Amino acid sequence: MKYPNNISKNYKKTINYSNRGMDLEAIINDANAYYLENDIAVIYKKPTPIGIVEVNYQNNAQITNAYFKEPSTLDYNGIYKGCYIEFDAKECRLVTSFPLNNVHPHQIKHIRNILRHGGIVFLILSMNGKYFLFKGEDFIQFIDANTRKSIPYDVILEKGYPLHLKYHGLDYLENIEEIYKGVDFQ
Amino acid sequence: MKYPNNISKNYKKTINYSNRGMDLEAIINDANAYYLENDIAVIYKKPTPIGIVEVNYQNNAQITNAYFKEPSTLDYNGIYKGCYIEFDAKECRLVTSFPLNNVHPHQIKHIRNILRHGGIVFLILSMNGKYFLFKGEDFIQFIDANTRKSIPYDVILEKGYPLHLKYHGLDYLENIEEIYKGVDFQ
Repeated sequence: MKYPNNISKNYKKTINYSNRGMDLEAIINDANAYYLENDIAVIYKKPTPIGIVEVNYQNNAQITNAYFKEPSTLDYNGIYKGCYIEFDAKECRLVTSFPLNNVHPHQIKHIRNILRHGGIVFLILSMNGKYFLFKGEDFIQFIDANTRKSIPYDVILEKGYPLHLKYHGLDYLENIEEIYKGVDFQ
Repeated sequence: MKYPNNISKNYKKTINYSNRGMDLEAIINDANAYYLENDIAVIYKKPTPIGIVEVNYQNNAQITNAYFKEPSTLDYNGIYKGCYIEFDAKECRLVTSFPLNNVHPHQIKHIRNILRHGGIVFLILSMNGKYFLFKGEDFIQFIDANTRKSIPYDVILEKGYPLHLKYHGLDYLENIEEIYKGVDFQ
């Protein structure tokens, strides 16, 4: 059985995870809506992957049995000034480090694939009340150079780019052209 | 209530739709797996959008009540040689024309958005035993220039690009660089 974000069977814990997850998701969705309305970028959250077991076609195609599947790509993707962008959003409760088991092996492989094919790929991390854009390049470099199971907060402060929460959501595209200087934005 | 692909409540019809839909989806998924394995492109089908009403956390987070939502983007997207690609796959039973109500208003708006932001976007049409790549540009041009509710097969033959079914699936990227001559593939 698969659970979203490694949710345990503990009911209370599940609710907590879910709420924390929604906060970051909500401010990113707000930003995406703002980007779309103002014709800045076209970026969507992909639907949650679900395995459908049973559908009742007699009752408006109601799904009566299904389960959460593990994602093999990142949650958000789209296009900004002609460039492919993909990212995932992760909230981290820990103060000192970001546990790498928050990113599934399939997702790590996918990050490598997107980088190799010339796409922009990153993580948005929410940690210690701050938001960071952590480049896929830096993430892969850390994994390849370390046997540690988590990224220390010091590394995130050093390598990550601070993101700012505005009235229209978490403005993760604000400095994207500076962060990705080599990329040929249209 | 929303139904996937405007499926009616008629049980038999539902089954037929679903099976026909799977055939085209299967040969596209095969192609995507081939592209991924051979490092040609990274393109995935997005999960079907589902609205979750009820989850039983006591039983392995089983979803016990959910419904199909109308998609606001196209089904497949990803990256090929640094370029953003998005498309949808449509099977058409009719011999003489492709009904435009197969593409939801939200999706038409989305096609316009992707075009404006410099992405490659198209439809893959299965019709009269043949497969076509129909460019988003041609699709929008037809909609804007016509009040017709369907695209005549003649227009699809004239504007569409034939696609070939190979042992590794429907090879829709085979001539993509020729079809999109102006695009700066890496």
